[in-house]
Amino acid sequence: MTPEKRKQEQSVAALVAPDILELLQNDPASIAAETEELHPADLADVAELLPRELVLLLLMSLPSARAADVLEYLNEELRSEVLEAMDAGQAAAFLTGMTPDERVDALDEMDEEAADEILEAIPEKERAETERLLQYEADTAGGLMTTEFVSLPETDTVEEALATIRAMARVGRREAMGTVYLVDGRGTLAGVLSLRELLAAAEGAILRDVAWTDVVTALATADREEVVRLTSNYDLVAVPVVDADHRLIGVITVDDVIDVIQEEQTEDAQKFGGLEALEEPYLQSSIADLLKKRSPWLIVLFVGQMFTAAAMGYFQGAIDAATVLALFVPLVISSGGNSGSQATSLIIRAMALQEVSARDWRRVLGREVVLGLILGTMLGVVGLLRVVVWQWFGLYPFGDHYLLLATTVGTTVIGVVLFGTLTGAMLPFALKKFGFDPASASAPLVATLVDVTGVVLYFTIAILLLRGTLL
Amino acid sequence: MTPEKRKQEQSVAALVAPDILELLQNDPASIAAETEELHPADLADVAELLPRELVLLLLMSLPSARAADVLEYLNEELRSEVLEAMDAGQAAAFLTGMTPDERVDALDEMDEEAADEILEAIPEKERAETERLLQYEADTAGGLMTTEFVSLPETDTVEEALATIRAMARVGRREAMGTVYLVDGRGTLAGVLSLRELLAAAEGAILRDVAWTDVVTALATADREEVVRLTSNYDLVAVPVVDADHRLIGVITVDDVIDVIQEEQTEDAQKFGGLEALEEPYLQSSIADLLKKRSPWLIVLFVGQMFTAAAMGYFQGAIDAATVLALFVPLVISSGGNSGSQATSLIIRAMALQEVSARDWRRVLGREVVLGLILGTMLGVVGLLRVVVWQWFGLYPFGDHYLLLATTVGTTVIGVVLFGTLTGAMLPFALKKFGFDPASASAPLVATLVDVTGVVLYFTIAILLLRGTLL
Repeated sequence: MTPEKRKQEQSVAALVAPDILELLQNDPASIAAETEELHPADLADVAELLPRELVLLLLMSLPSARAADVLEYLNEELRSEVLEAMDAGQAAAFLTGMTPDERVDALDEMDEEAADEILEAIPEKERAETERLLQYEADTAGGLMTTEFVSLPETDTVEEALATIRAMARVGRREAMGTVYLVDGRGTLAGVLSLRELLAAAEGAILRDVAWTDVVTALATADREEVVRLTSNYDLVAVPVVDADHRLIGVITVDDVIDVIQEEQTEDAQKFGGLEALEEPYLQSSIADLLKKRSPWLIVLFVGQMFTAAAMGYFQGAIDAATVLALFVPLVISSGGNSGSQATSLIIRAMALQEVSARDWRRVLGREVVLGLILGTMLGVVGLLRVVVWQWFGLYPFGDHYLLLATTVGTTVIGVVLFGTLTGAMLPFALKKFGFDPASASAPLVATLVDVTGVVLYFTIAILLLRGTLL
Repeated sequence: MTPEKRKQEQSVAALVAPDILELLQNDPASIAAETEELHPADLADVAELLPRELVLLLLMSLPSARAADVLEYLNEELRSEVLEAMDAGQAAAFLTGMTPDERVDALDEMDEEAADEILEAIPEKERAETERLLQYEADTAGGLMTTEFVSLPETDTVEEALATIRAMARVGRREAMGTVYLVDGRGTLAGVLSLRELLAAAEGAILRDVAWTDVVTALATADREEVVRLTSNYDLVAVPVVDADHRLIGVITVDDVIDVIQEEQTEDAQKFGGLEALEEPYLQSSIADLLKKRSPWLIVLFVGQMFTAAAMGYFQGAIDAATVLALFVPLVISSGGNSGSQATSLIIRAMALQEVSARDWRRVLGREVVLGLILGTMLGVVGLLRVVVWQWFGLYPFGDHYLLLATTVGTTVIGVVLFGTLTGAMLPFALKKFGFDPASASAPLVATLVDVTGVVLYFTIAILLLRGTLL
């Protein structure tokens, strides 16, 4: 790492945290003024660096609206901890200051009892809005949307629209205000235009005549991955959410979409590593959490791997006759796991980006057969040479039949790599076909599936080639 | 997959592609009118589904500005192919209609000679702008930024600003227009406010007095990952890019940040699977490309794995004496690779999200020691029982000393899982420390490192425990 890079890593929060810590301990009354210039995201990062018992003090030292801003950026676990620790009235005041979607997220993460108590203390209007949003599952478009957006009658003029937006902006509504949505008399989404397009429109024009009428929308019940797809495909900065009657009920802002993308990617990466996805960041997860996410797959894989012991037991006669055969078992079978891991990672990722769909399986199979054969032949030759060269240079005495042994190793590697590649490439398709998440096809799972087959293939080829000589 | 889910997968493009294909073949003159309602992103998706030779015809059948829009959404490989296939003047006309950052991306992807020829044919003003942008490396903030943004003198009034923006919007500049950047007399970035905030500002106010003065910026030379971090940390929809003198030289829009996030994650996923990251999507990559990206790591890993054969050779005496020992080699060593893969995937992802930094290695080590011991003990007990239960139920005759054999297997598994967990967790830190990409710590690499140690540990424990009985 270059020094320049290292310097970048020192975040704003890390730089100011010591000073803020000192102020909190000696002069909390000055906190609000001293931190005024900091971005709420940085102040949230500072809070994450502080001892837990001081986070509450920090928030209470700030003006309520400012504390609400900081809470929006705080990591979920710390946020629920802090909100649960304060009295319900105070927590409700902070939550009321948050944007509707973040408020709902915060309540979603909390203990149900604590959440209910706080909800009771939120003013009528915001409470109704919050309760409506709480109905949607967190992983749907409805669960991501905010209700702070600009929707105007499609019959308004450009001037009327600008006046309304100006008034709304002045009372401090914050989210999803760069885009203006048009609705008809029944609340049905009828068009969209950006604030910039509104400014560019001829004076006196009717909104309906200057807006885009073909609007990309997400159903409230749509999966959050669909929202990611729409945002990324159409380069959107906000996705309007509609109900079954195409009535506009909310808007998802791009910052929440980015959070979803990163969460989904984290889940996929962890699943590919062979564990259940964590709910919290690694360092915030307890040892018990980590055990719960890691041990089930480890045990399943270990039990699956027991079939290698059974397979080896089945061939113990061959091992007894030629123990030299045993030496190459790990080498031979691992080549299948490695090539399978490559193929699986490619296919899972291509599926996640929708570059490859379920219908493409034949095309993928065709390519991977070719690749598996070529890669297998490359490794097979290396494996064959490993035996031959060691023998020639006297590095290890494989005996008179070393050429047959070398051929056994080389041939098996071709077969194992081909089988590993195909298993790795087809497993995500198979999982998807049967309704499972293709991302569950982890590297260790592929390796385990391939190892057992590798053992059987190796000894079968050995018996065929070495019968009458070593065996 | 539920029927509802399957229906969603049928994209707009897939639905309309057959009709467009037919029009192209029979009545290309009507294409422009017939596809008028389609989003350019959908039309780009249609182009990707068409036979290659018809894509050019499709683009030429559209008005020039519309074709430019479609080109912005087209996948990179197809885009350079199509642009290279048309004459330079036509390509230049299309490129001129694209946003500056996309224009630069398109040229960056093309054959240098073709790109130069097209650049020559672009009008003076756009050419100069393009050449300036081309100076920046594609993976830096400068390489991502567009030059279409709104910057105004900080001394302007709100009314002057609105009039300017209105004029700019009317001539059709498109990107990064939701945010207004203020500059002083020397072009130094002095403040920022959103279009909404501008609308909300009191009439007659000076921009400087109503804008935010603490602006989050990226240096033009900053790595694109820094841009991702800023966008995601501060929930930005646009990141202003400055030169070393803090002069505003461009703006990065959030849609490009999302592309970077997805590209980086794809690279990380492929590296973790044990191959070099691909430059093109899987199905667009040639077999030769895939071989070039996959074979080097496979060979390196295969050669590394040869140490298992050497280690087993070293212990061939023990195997000769008790071939039953060989049966458990794959089972025992795979437990280390699996637990290592889990730990590596967790740490790499946490590093990518900057949840874990280089300084946290001790904390991670402490947690993983505990986890490795617990997970190892769980698997060790299962492994011990595997031998004991098979013996008791007469499923396999391990001989009189089966309890010692069981203890050997169980003890080794504890050690191998602990070692695998620690190797997996620490390898990303070690790679980072020595200037490598921590994401290179792939699942197959960890497995290979751990397998060799596993073999040595297993036979060493066997010799210690079984001396005088089986050995």
